[in-house]
Amino acid sequence: MDRRRFLAASTVAGATAAASTLPAPAIAQDRTEWTMVTSWPRNLPGPGIAANKLAERITTLSGGRLTVTVSAAGELVPGRGVFDAVADGTAQLYHSVPAYWGSKSIGILLFGSQPFGLVAEEQIGWLTHGGGQALYDEMYARFGLKGFLCGNSGPQWAGWFRNEITSIDDYQGLRFRTTGLASEMMAKVGAAVVAMGGADMFQALQSGALDAGEFIGPWTDSALGYYQIAPYYYWPGVGEPSSAEECGISKEAYDALPEDLQQAVAHACQSLYDEVTTEYNTNHAIALQQLVSEHDVQVRRLPDDVIVALGNAAGEVIAELRENEDELVRRIVESFLAYRASMVEYMQYASGGIMNARQLDFSYG
Amino acid sequence: MDRRRFLAASTVAGATAAASTLPAPAIAQDRTEWTMVTSWPRNLPGPGIAANKLAERITTLSGGRLTVTVSAAGELVPGRGVFDAVADGTAQLYHSVPAYWGSKSIGILLFGSQPFGLVAEEQIGWLTHGGGQALYDEMYARFGLKGFLCGNSGPQWAGWFRNEITSIDDYQGLRFRTTGLASEMMAKVGAAVVAMGGADMFQALQSGALDAGEFIGPWTDSALGYYQIAPYYYWPGVGEPSSAEECGISKEAYDALPEDLQQAVAHACQSLYDEVTTEYNTNHAIALQQLVSEHDVQVRRLPDDVIVALGNAAGEVIAELRENEDELVRRIVESFLAYRASMVEYMQYASGGIMNARQLDFSYG
Repeated sequence: MDRRRFLAASTVAGATAAASTLPAPAIAQDRTEWTMVTSWPRNLPGPGIAANKLAERITTLSGGRLTVTVSAAGELVPGRGVFDAVADGTAQLYHSVPAYWGSKSIGILLFGSQPFGLVAEEQIGWLTHGGGQALYDEMYARFGLKGFLCGNSGPQWAGWFRNEITSIDDYQGLRFRTTGLASEMMAKVGAAVVAMGGADMFQALQSGALDAGEFIGPWTDSALGYYQIAPYYYWPGVGEPSSAEECGISKEAYDALPEDLQQAVAHACQSLYDEVTTEYNTNHAIALQQLVSEHDVQVRRLPDDVIVALGNAAGEVIAELRENEDELVRRIVESFLAYRASMVEYMQYASGGIMNARQLDFSYG
Repeated sequence: MDRRRFLAASTVAGATAAASTLPAPAIAQDRTEWTMVTSWPRNLPGPGIAANKLAERITTLSGGRLTVTVSAAGELVPGRGVFDAVADGTAQLYHSVPAYWGSKSIGILLFGSQPFGLVAEEQIGWLTHGGGQALYDEMYARFGLKGFLCGNSGPQWAGWFRNEITSIDDYQGLRFRTTGLASEMMAKVGAAVVAMGGADMFQALQSGALDAGEFIGPWTDSALGYYQIAPYYYWPGVGEPSSAEECGISKEAYDALPEDLQQAVAHACQSLYDEVTTEYNTNHAIALQQLVSEHDVQVRRLPDDVIVALGNAAGEVIAELRENEDELVRRIVESFLAYRASMVEYMQYASGGIMNARQLDFSYG
C-alpha cells in the first residue's frame, strides 16, 4: 500500500492492534478503516439492510484488512448529502441510488434507470458487457468518485391511483409523485409532478395534496399504507423498469488500495447485485398477494394506448438527452440506446418469451 | 487452519515460497492450492472462460492464500467425470452444470433448470431467498460436496428444425436432441429423444440421424453450424427456461477453510452469476442478428397450442417428481413449485410486463 496516496482514509498501522479481530491466519501489516454513509435510515428493509450487508461483505472479503462501518442517513451527513460527503473526503464510500444525482449531471440518471429502458438484469449487463461501466467511471471521475452498482429494486410500479386510468387524458393535471427521468416523461403527458419522500407521499395522498404516485413496489409500499387512500395499483412501471442501487467510493481511497482489496470491494458489490434484486422480487411477490387478499387492492394494467402515449413521451425525453450539451451525456445515451435495442429484440425470444408462455392455460405440477 | 481436517487439498506451508506471488501486503502463513476440474474444453467461449474467471476470482479474493488451477475436460478426468472426481478427492472443485447429474439424483436437475420453470434471475432467487440453497446443500452433502451456482446460459431455444412446426403432432417420432428434464417432456409428446454433445449434433443433423435439436442459444449454436441444415430456429425455449452453471466443491476441503476463505469462494461464485448470465444474453443477441442477416435463419415462435401441449407434458413430468420415492426430491420439487407459483404471477407485472410494453408501437430515442 502506498501511504502517500492514501490520504482520504484512516489507516491503523501495525498488526498487533488489529490481530484479535482478524480471521486466522491472515496477519495484515496494515488495517484500513472506511466509513460508509448511506441515504437510508438505519436497518431500513431493502436498501438499509443492503448497505449493512455490503459493509460486512467488504470487511469479510478483505480478510479484515479493510473494515467498513455504516453511518445511516442523518448521523454523519443527510441522506441526500452522501455523494458530496464522499467527493469531499468526509467519508470513503456511500450506499445510495444514482436516481438522486440528476442535479450533478442528468447523465447519471441513466445508470439507475431509464423510462421504457432496461430491466434489472439488462442494466447490469449494459454496465458489464455493453460499455456502461467505462462511461460510469468517466462520469464519476469528474467528482472524484468510483461507482459500482450493488443491487436493484426491480421495476417500480406505475403507481397508486384513487380512480381507474382509462386514457392518457387522465394524467392531465394529475398531481403525481415520481422521480428522475420518469418525472420528465410524466410532465410531457401533462402530469403535475411532485418530488417528495416515500413517507411524505402517504400524508400528501391523505390530505389531497397529491392525487397519485409511485414509490418502489409492493414490499416497500405496503408498509407505507398508500392502499388505504389509492386502491388502484397499476402496472407495468414503464417509468422505471429498474432502479439500481449503487456504491460510490472516493476514487483517491479506492486507487490507494492494493489490487486484491480493490477486487474485494468490486466483487462485494457485484455479488450483492443479484442477492438484493431477487430479495426485492421475492418479497414484492409475497406482499402483493397480501395487498390483494387482505386489503382489497385492485391490480390493474395500464391500457395499451396509455402505454404507447407514455412510450412516446419517454422517447422525447431520450431524444432530448441525445442533444445534451455535455458530450459525455450524449455518449452515455448512445451506449444505452445501442444496448437497449439489442435487448428489446432479444429478450422477447428469451426470458420475456418464457414468461408469456408460462401464462398460457396448461396444467402444471 | 486446522490441518488435520484438511486432507483433500495440498497445502504449501510457509510464507517464503509464496511471498513473491502474493499481493502486498498480505503475508499468509499457509497457502492452499486447489485443482478445479471442468466439463469444458480449455477456454471454450461461455463455460470454459467462466471456469477460468472463477478460478482467478477465488485466487484474488483469497488474497493469494487459496490458489486455484484449472484442469480442462480430459486433462485430469473426462468432462462428465468431474462430479465423481471431486466426490472422491481427486480434485477439490469442479465447474460444470447440474444438468449432467440426473443419474446421481433426478432432484439435482431442478437446481439447473425445470421445463416451464424459472428464468435465470428467478433461479438464483429461489436458491438465495426461497429455500433452494439449503436443499441443494442437503442433496450435495450426500456426495460429500458443496455446490454454488455461478452462472446461467439463460433460456435455451426451442430448437433447430428442418421444417416448420404447425402442431404438436409434428413432434411424433421426431429424433430430437435435448437434455435433462426437457428430455422427459419431449418424450411425453412423442419425440424420440437422443442424448449427445453439441458438436456431435451437427454431424447427426447432417447425416440424417437426427431431425432436430436444441443446444444452448444463438452465441454458442452459431459456431456449431446447425443453421446450415435446420434453418428454422424456434422460441421460446420452454424446455429449459434457464440453464445454471455450478461450482461443486469437496465439502471436506470447503469445511476446512477458515470462514473468510469460505466467503471468498462463495462470493466469487455469486459475483459471477450475473456476469456470466448477462454475457450470454449480450452475445446471444448479437449472434442472433448475424444468424438472421448473414445466414437467413428463420426465427419462429412455437404456436400457442404447441406451447400448451408442451406445458401439459412438463406438468406431468413435475407431477411424477412430486411422487418420487426419495423424500428429499419431493421436498425440492415442492420448494421449487412454491417459488415458481409466486414468480409466475409476479413477473408478469414486473419484468415480463415491462418487456411486453417495450414491444408496443411508439417512437423511442
